[in-house]
Amino acid sequence: MIVPKAANLPRMIQYVGLPLLALVVWDVCIVVAYKVLHWEWVGSRNVPLALYGSAIGIIVGFRNNSAYARWWEARGLWGQIVNNSRSFARQVFSTLRPDHIESEHDEDELLTTRHTLIYHQIAYVHALRQQLRGLDPFPEIHGLIPEAEYQSLALQKNVALALQRNMGTIVRNARQRGWIDNLEWQAMDKNLDDLADAQGGTERIKNTPMPKQYDFFPMLFVQIYCILLPIGMVEQLGWFTPLGSTLVGFMFLTLDKIGRDLEDPFDNEIYDVPLTSITRTIEINLRQILGETELPPPVTPERGVLW
Amino acid sequence: MIVPKAANLPRMIQYVGLPLLALVVWDVCIVVAYKVLHWEWVGSRNVPLALYGSAIGIIVGFRNNSAYARWWEARGLWGQIVNNSRSFARQVFSTLRPDHIESEHDEDELLTTRHTLIYHQIAYVHALRQQLRGLDPFPEIHGLIPEAEYQSLALQKNVALALQRNMGTIVRNARQRGWIDNLEWQAMDKNLDDLADAQGGTERIKNTPMPKQYDFFPMLFVQIYCILLPIGMVEQLGWFTPLGSTLVGFMFLTLDKIGRDLEDPFDNEIYDVPLTSITRTIEINLRQILGETELPPPVTPERGVLW
Amino acid sequence: MIVPKAANLPRMIQYVGLPLLALVVWDVCIVVAYKVLHWEWVGSRNVPLALYGSAIGIIVGFRNNSAYARWWEARGLWGQIVNNSRSFARQVFSTLRPDHIESEHDEDELLTTRHTLIYHQIAYVHALRQQLRGLDPFPEIHGLIPEAEYQSLALQKNVALALQRNMGTIVRNARQRGWIDNLEWQAMDKNLDDLADAQGGTERIKNTPMPKQYDFFPMLFVQIYCILLPIGMVEQLGWFTPLGSTLVGFMFLTLDKIGRDLEDPFDNEIYDVPLTSITRTIEINLRQILGETELPPPVTPERGVLW
Amino acid sequence: MIVPKAANLPRMIQYVGLPLLALVVWDVCIVVAYKVLHWEWVGSRNVPLALYGSAIGIIVGFRNNSAYARWWEARGLWGQIVNNSRSFARQVFSTLRPDHIESEHDEDELLTTRHTLIYHQIAYVHALRQQLRGLDPFPEIHGLIPEAEYQSLALQKNVALALQRNMGTIVRNARQRGWIDNLEWQAMDKNLDDLADAQGGTERIKNTPMPKQYDFFPMLFVQIYCILLPIGMVEQLGWFTPLGSTLVGFMFLTLDKIGRDLEDPFDNEIYDVPLTSITRTIEINLRQILGETELPPPVTPERGVLW
Amino acid sequence: MIVPKAANLPRMIQYVGLPLLALVVWDVCIVVAYKVLHWEWVGSRNVPLALYGSAIGIIVGFRNNSAYARWWEARGLWGQIVNNSRSFARQVFSTLRPDHIESEHDEDELLTTRHTLIYHQIAYVHALRQQLRGLDPFPEIHGLIPEAEYQSLALQKNVALALQRNMGTIVRNARQRGWIDNLEWQAMDKNLDDLADAQGGTERIKNTPMPKQYDFFPMLFVQIYCILLPIGMVEQLGWFTPLGSTLVGFMFLTLDKIGRDLEDPFDNEIYDVPLTSITRTIEINLRQILGETELPPPVTPERGVLW
Repeated sequence: MIVPKAANLPRMIQYVGLPLLALVVWDVCIVVAYKVLHWEWVGSRNVPLALYGSAIGIIVGFRNNSAYARWWEARGLWGQIVNNSRSFARQVFSTLRPDHIESEHDEDELLTTRHTLIYHQIAYVHALRQQLRGLDPFPEIHGLIPEAEYQSLALQKNVALALQRNMGTIVRNARQRGWIDNLEWQAMDKNLDDLADAQGGTERIKNTPMPKQYDFFPMLFVQIYCILLPIGMVEQLGWFTPLGSTLVGFMFLTLDKIGRDLEDPFDNEIYDVPLTSITRTIEINLRQILGETELPPPVTPERGVLW
Repeated sequence: MIVPKAANLPRMIQYVGLPLLALVVWDVCIVVAYKVLHWEWVGSRNVPLALYGSAIGIIVGFRNNSAYARWWEARGLWGQIVNNSRSFARQVFSTLRPDHIESEHDEDELLTTRHTLIYHQIAYVHALRQQLRGLDPFPEIHGLIPEAEYQSLALQKNVALALQRNMGTIVRNARQRGWIDNLEWQAMDKNLDDLADAQGGTERIKNTPMPKQYDFFPMLFVQIYCILLPIGMVEQLGWFTPLGSTLVGFMFLTLDKIGRDLEDPFDNEIYDVPLTSITRTIEINLRQILGETELPPPVTPERGVLW
Repeated sequence: MIVPKAANLPRMIQYVGLPLLALVVWDVCIVVAYKVLHWEWVGSRNVPLALYGSAIGIIVGFRNNSAYARWWEARGLWGQIVNNSRSFARQVFSTLRPDHIESEHDEDELLTTRHTLIYHQIAYVHALRQQLRGLDPFPEIHGLIPEAEYQSLALQKNVALALQRNMGTIVRNARQRGWIDNLEWQAMDKNLDDLADAQGGTERIKNTPMPKQYDFFPMLFVQIYCILLPIGMVEQLGWFTPLGSTLVGFMFLTLDKIGRDLEDPFDNEIYDVPLTSITRTIEINLRQILGETELPPPVTPERGVLW
Repeated sequence: MIVPKAANLPRMIQYVGLPLLALVVWDVCIVVAYKVLHWEWVGSRNVPLALYGSAIGIIVGFRNNSAYARWWEARGLWGQIVNNSRSFARQVFSTLRPDHIESEHDEDELLTTRHTLIYHQIAYVHALRQQLRGLDPFPEIHGLIPEAEYQSLALQKNVALALQRNMGTIVRNARQRGWIDNLEWQAMDKNLDDLADAQGGTERIKNTPMPKQYDFFPMLFVQIYCILLPIGMVEQLGWFTPLGSTLVGFMFLTLDKIGRDLEDPFDNEIYDVPLTSITRTIEINLRQILGETELPPPVTPERGVLW
Repeated sequence: MIVPKAANLPRMIQYVGLPLLALVVWDVCIVVAYKVLHWEWVGSRNVPLALYGSAIGIIVGFRNNSAYARWWEARGLWGQIVNNSRSFARQVFSTLRPDHIESEHDEDELLTTRHTLIYHQIAYVHALRQQLRGLDPFPEIHGLIPEAEYQSLALQKNVALALQRNMGTIVRNARQRGWIDNLEWQAMDKNLDDLADAQGGTERIKNTPMPKQYDFFPMLFVQIYCILLPIGMVEQLGWFTPLGSTLVGFMFLTLDKIGRDLEDPFDNEIYDVPLTSITRTIEINLRQILGETELPPPVTPERGVLW
């Protein structure tokens, strides 16, 4: 996610980038051809630019609405993951309490279980983030879960799902040990289910891109439009054509690009929902609940981008 | 669903296809009539193209919004089916556990029940997919459920619903046998209910198409518009008419087609929600939960289309 | 609901109907006055048609969005009624089981209760459909419920609500008899509550039409617009005026009519949500659950309309 | 709420009212100045009316969408209140039953409690309606609740909330008396909670008007636009200016007014959600549940307005 | 939030402020250059203002929709906080009752607990408000919670979250003491969870601003548009240019500003959701439930702004 303060003109022109440059070059070619070489057939005031513009407006406008809705839905799903991670940790911390236990040996085990569960949740959000971005989850979870379990995950295709299943087993064991009662188990199990639902939602967004027609045609139409712009304007604007036509082209290229960038919120690009930052926040929250004081620092923007 | 990489220009022109060709031919006819045969009455710069265009824009824009909303709702409902299938399998696997059982004979039965339930769920999603697409569900579920049950389904009109009812009976029996307690039964029953609700939602989308007025008029208006385009442009664009008018026509034909394709997400066409792929994923997930290692491969796109 | 296959041009022109005819007549009058009688004051190229068109576009576009949203909400609420009816019948069938009962006499009573409850649900959906359409519910429910109960309903204003209250009493009695336990009673009661909520939603849509301003002004503006169209076009289009102006008028009349038709989805008109078909489907489903084999046939479209 | 049948042209012109008259006067002034006094500087065909129109269209269109959404949300919240009021009364009637009671004295008390609770609910909806409209709730609830309680409410700022709290206490006492069991208490308490949530929602809509910028600027821009209309049109339309310009002005004034009217659905104006009618319906339903036969008549529209 | 009555013309012109002034100056410069200095190259009627305008309309319209949706979502989340705060206080007041207690000593403790819990809730909403606005929460909560606890919060990064965790502990202790039963504990715990979810939602809106592209480009495009306006109009409007061009510019600057202001509803600016007022209302409600009579006054608008 590009952070607010990073928004300045050069960066934003750079945002559109190459297509804009190509457009300027093309504009200059047309005007030179028309004014210097006197190829008057390159220009025609009859190009129905307004008609094209309104058709493009409809399709791009719609695509952008949908793309933003996807992006915000993705953000909302991660908001749920944040809420449920915190709730789960709070439940673990407040229900798995040593004062319910008799022998000292059990107490040690209980404290270990508590620690294990919360670290599993930390590993879970890191693994999910990496999976969604198409990156290897293993380096991120190494050290957070027991070595034996780490090895056993090697063959899993959906590491986050497997981690969650393991958490379910640990919670169930705790219930069998009598450390938590039925009511508490039900609440924790519901929480894990909600996490699974949110995960399913993020995977749905990842695996079902916008229908490709909605993606291809806006770009195609905008490009054709940009090619026609100087042709339609050169008769009237003359030497000012590159200025006038580049400006309109810049607007339409931007409109198209804004939508395309938000379409896929888990693509490991600078327009992503800032998963690294969100998962780090969860990690800090959960470690604080465990009472740790050496916390990792929050993620800060790198060159104007919050990952 | 057309996969991203398959989006190239020839395929996309082919996407609109025949109507585009017809439009080009018509454009050429008009320009030949005007410029060669000098039938000047075929052209008139007074055709109010912009007026038509904006009226069409309103109706097509609205139809496309609604069509996309239907498509995304359909995808969301299948997302729920994925989530609930996984949850159900996880519940079956973790609650129907041999360590709750005394005699060995019971243990065998319990393991069979576990296996049967999860295979029923696999059969269920395949049957639902076939039904929604108007295909025969029986070949897809043969072998997944006991032969006797398979025969008994022959007369059922809604095979998926019948399968689910059978699952409900199996779960209820397991409760009567004492293999699962009330709390666990409640959770599994709720899961089956949620599946039934999602199924009801998909059937609603399937059985209630867009109001036909919204489907017919956009197409009609776009076609009339395409007929008028060269008439209105030929005076001004002359020999360039086919180019200019085809371009506008291409945009409007595309706009109309994009919406129409998404309208019915369960039509066994290339624009469908990719049900084959989704159900295969569920099958792989569920077989993995059972500990199987010989898994069917995920569905891959065929010539750029993910089914 | 007009079924897809019924959509052909003559039917669709007929769809707009009288206003279209009036428009054509008016168009011809204007052109005759201008070209034959040379009343040149009837035409003026200065009529700001585009300005009018865009203002109308805003209001009609918005109205149509809202009307479609109402229609789809109504369809969704009936989707909930379908789901809950099925769930309720499944619950009744699977919990009211003879094997829980000791004496044979009780068994008869239990089977009767089961039958009564499911038939009440069938009567309920028929009654609700009739009420929403402003028709008499009594002929539709006669024979489905006991004669004595039928008589007692005569004074009720909201027959569906009264039927549901009776069902609640029957379920409560079954619980007191010990045929169903608390957990099962809770689930069935929740189901009846959800049905009542969906019913409340349909009544809300029925009783709160679109704010009348949103209904009146689009029609008024479109009519004024149609009157102005030939006046504004006759100077430029001459004898082609009726063609050009009728076409634009046709588009706007259609736009307006499409929205108006969807606005009230329970009006016993051909654009209704197909309640007859939906309730028949519920009846078939519920009778099948009871094991009946002589089922009523599904509703089929009559002359292209599914009721 | 204006009822459908009341929609006729004079009423609707009157709907816009004074501003429309002012506009006509202004239009006539301009045309007289231009054509009679030959002040040609009052007219200019260069006024960019289309540019203004499209900017206004964006802001008014958006405002109207939001206003309608507020209105429909308000209606939906009252729909919940209707549903929950009915459910609550049904619960009260069917759980507080004399056959659970031993002594006759208790039976009297129980019947009184039943009656009191349902009358409290009637008082609650009347009080909420009055509060939302900024009217005095006390006259409406007098006689519905015990005199002592009525007096005690005098200092309360939120009478509806206080009434609800008293209902909670009565229900809790009934549970302590053993008249209802825990399960039933939980269901009734949940119902009261849902009522409180719906009330909170209506108060939110009441207390948080549309951001005032969205309200002020559309009106300002439409007024400026109306002033410019005859100036921009007089050169071209001449003596027909008042007609042409009033028509466009009428459309925009209407667009603006429609949105403004729906913005605040609890303002005791004729465009309100018809709270009087809704609360009367609740009262009739609830009295019928108590078995009363002397019911108040439903609210009928007064001069085309349903309150 | 700007209150309705404060909306008058001067304030609203001031609303747009500096950019508007800059625009007027620029407009005058252009017209002077054109009419006085006869630099005719500064004006050109060929500037495609309509094309620019429609592209800007799309992007600004979309941004404003999204910004308003964020603002209204924020308001809705605070509506939930109001509802849940009231519910929680009501639960505390009606379940923690002295008549359940035996010894007098316990009664004192219980009353203290009751008081502590409700004051914690008051502190919670004040702390959350301050945090969201980026202000120091500590001065606002001093005196509302015990001094020891106040000190212990000093290191917490998320004071509201920590306060809530403490409330959870107090409630859990009350359950262990036997003051509330399991059912009541479950209801109160659910309430705290819902509060945490609403808090998570407000933090999501605070921490994830609109994608910066949607913020930067509308402003950039509107500014460029304003620069071009007099250039494109001066030929036609002459000395009236500043009037005509300022008017269009005013509309677009306003459109842009309206959206930007609503985008961030927790920014401690005058367009904020009125958190101070909302939290004060909660405080008054909760103190009233405790039976206090010396209540703080409601927040009133200061110079037309409700904080």
